Amino acid sequence: VRPVAALLTDFGHQDPFVGVMKGVLAGRCPEAQVIDLCHEVPRQDVRAGALHLLAAVPYFPDGTLFVCVVDPGVGSRRRVLWARGERHAFLFPDNGLLSWAERVEPLREVRKVSSKRVMLRPVSSTFHGRDIFAPAAAALLRGLDPALLGPRIASRVRLRFPVPRGSKRGLRGEILGLDRFGNAVTNLRRGDVPRGAALFVGDRPVGPLRRAYASVRPGRPAVVVGSAGFIELSVRDGSFAERFNAGAGEAVHVR
Amino acid sequence: VRPVAALLTDFGHQDPFVGVMKGVLAGRCPEAQVIDLCHEVPRQDVRAGALHLLAAVPYFPDGTLFVCVVDPGVGSRRRVLWARGERHAFLFPDNGLLSWAERVEPLREVRKVSSKRVMLRPVSSTFHGRDIFAPAAAALLRGLDPALLGPRIASRVRLRFPVPRGSKRGLRGEILGLDRFGNAVTNLRRGDVPRGAALFVGDRPVGPLRRAYASVRPGRPAVVVGSAGFIELSVRDGSFAERFNAGAGEAVHVR
Amino acid sequence: VRPVAALLTDFGHQDPFVGVMKGVLAGRCPEAQVIDLCHEVPRQDVRAGALHLLAAVPYFPDGTLFVCVVDPGVGSRRRVLWARGERHAFLFPDNGLLSWAERVEPLREVRKVSSKRVMLRPVSSTFHGRDIFAPAAAALLRGLDPALLGPRIASRVRLRFPVPRGSKRGLRGEILGLDRFGNAVTNLRRGDVPRGAALFVGDRPVGPLRRAYASVRPGRPAVVVGSAGFIELSVRDGSFAERFNAGAGEAVHVR
Repeated sequence: VRPVAALLTDFGHQDPFVGVMKGVLAGRCPEAQVIDLCHEVPRQDVRAGALHLLAAVPYFPDGTLFVCVVDPGVGSRRRVLWARGERHAFLFPDNGLLSWAERVEPLREVRKVSSKRVMLRPVSSTFHGRDIFAPAAAALLRGLDPALLGPRIASRVRLRFPVPRGSKRGLRGEILGLDRFGNAVTNLRRGDVPRGAALFVGDRPVGPLRRAYASVRPGRPAVVVGSAGFIELSVRDGSFAERFNAGAGEAVHVR
Repeated sequence: VRPVAALLTDFGHQDPFVGVMKGVLAGRCPEAQVIDLCHEVPRQDVRAGALHLLAAVPYFPDGTLFVCVVDPGVGSRRRVLWARGERHAFLFPDNGLLSWAERVEPLREVRKVSSKRVMLRPVSSTFHGRDIFAPAAAALLRGLDPALLGPRIASRVRLRFPVPRGSKRGLRGEILGLDRFGNAVTNLRRGDVPRGAALFVGDRPVGPLRRAYASVRPGRPAVVVGSAGFIELSVRDGSFAERFNAGAGEAVHVR
Repeated sequence: VRPVAALLTDFGHQDPFVGVMKGVLAGRCPEAQVIDLCHEVPRQDVRAGALHLLAAVPYFPDGTLFVCVVDPGVGSRRRVLWARGERHAFLFPDNGLLSWAERVEPLREVRKVSSKRVMLRPVSSTFHGRDIFAPAAAALLRGLDPALLGPRIASRVRLRFPVPRGSKRGLRGEILGLDRFGNAVTNLRRGDVPRGAALFVGDRPVGPLRRAYASVRPGRPAVVVGSAGFIELSVRDGSFAERFNAGAGEAVHVR
């Protein structure tokens, strides 16, 4: 079976950065199957990358190595980490990028990537995707013992997941992010929305939980359980984000 | 030979949706070769997706399975269909997305995808690309007998192809779509433009048929036979769409 | 080992052009590994494509065939060329697109692609990526003797590389291009910036050379050696391009 690498970056598509990472991978592990998970994470937005990983990781085959580069600290002393969970492995900067995915796949072993032997020489100060992440990934996909990457570490940077909490205006959740269609993914789950309850953004009602977009008329807001298991706020055949002028971090109340 | 899947969606690149579909495919059919046909179909624009398929399908190898997800009806009772033509096979929502490609490759067998055995469990109401299309594609690429997907069906949703027709202002065609370069693809063919005839958008002349963009000076409009066999309206080293402020559906006359 | 093709175009992602090229490649050379180097080169911007190739070519495995289609002259008499350097091979239009990469990998043999046997029939006047580049690439990846493509040629179109030069305001370099993060890549190298010198865009100081973005405070400009070996102008956690309202071609002085 070909080893699988899944790439998540904020490099976008206008520059050759992602292509160069794949060039390095192809040279050092030609048998790898490389899958683009996403490269349009908003630049330096660790939280958006964390949400993508939370939604995507469970759907990749066992053994997939996620190579995650949303890395505002590149060139500083922030560490590059390797970790493995029950089913997958990960390379990522020590900035919390993996914290939300850890909620569905706890990490069993975490190491600092410090061995110069898995890096290109010289290592630039601006493109560790090419100089550290890609060659380390190639080495791992070829079977390198992860113990050779560097020492186990005890602590790492955590990104807090905003857990819904009670408030005098009802259960208070928030918007975690928006997708291309203008749907807002919240941190609420089905069990957080009792029968008869409705959702509100500020004072504006969005409605009760629906089975599907098609349960409302075109142009009307719809609250559905989204594909990542979280409650999503939508407008059928429209954009919730535009209609409600809402973005990540905005409060959503259930009452 | 590795089985080939070609993906066409309106998921865009900012979200992990396409990556997740590939994760499901990689887990269930690791030997598949997965080709991105296009993921930037304007959202929910079935007509734009239909035009892409019409232009692209003939150039893919025999046996390619096209997995097509431009699907405003996701979560409603619209059906997911599988079909095969003489050379290729297709998975697509029953909304007309394949109607224009059928003009070049008629369908010989059409089935409703209803077997739960080829779907993930549970099936979400918002992401059938992940829960139905990708796993059904993987099963087919691994050799599943299509008869096990579900029953043959007799009728399906059709998207009308706008055939050029006579009018008192000359043969009336229309713009089917625009490309990145601002070229306008029309529904006219070479045989629709007699020697000595010129094309008009409204009252504005675009000129006679040319051999290539280079037949006119930079900045001038050029009418050429485009790569899909349709007449295209261009501006050399410029954008026809911007210069003529024209878009899909706009009338084009030959006289 | 699977043969590797790297694709660089200005086709973007909204149209099926890149997908169609891959369809042709998959039909004619199913064993090829096809890597997207970049498809968002600004349209018809040969200079931007040349910069991408200069930065990327060295990181691809030996034997990679670069298929480069930034081609404003498509359909005119401009030639399609094949060339090989010490490690890689190239298909490209004769417009200077490869001139800057030649600075790091000189070409040893250059041929005109004229054999109809490696092209689709008919050849359109607008989409040589599909009709010439992709099938010629597939033939080469399958082992075609390049001598069968067409005759060797002695001269070709060159794109001048702007070498820094002395001026009364100090060494005068220029901005070669911008990346997604708003960093400006210049034509200056580390050796062009003596200790104690600073860089200026117009009269505005950008500062001395730093080790990394993290050497300055967030929001401050930083001059670093970028990943392609050129001096880059940045703003930490911000956009140099926006802050300094600067773009390709703009003068940068060292003094």
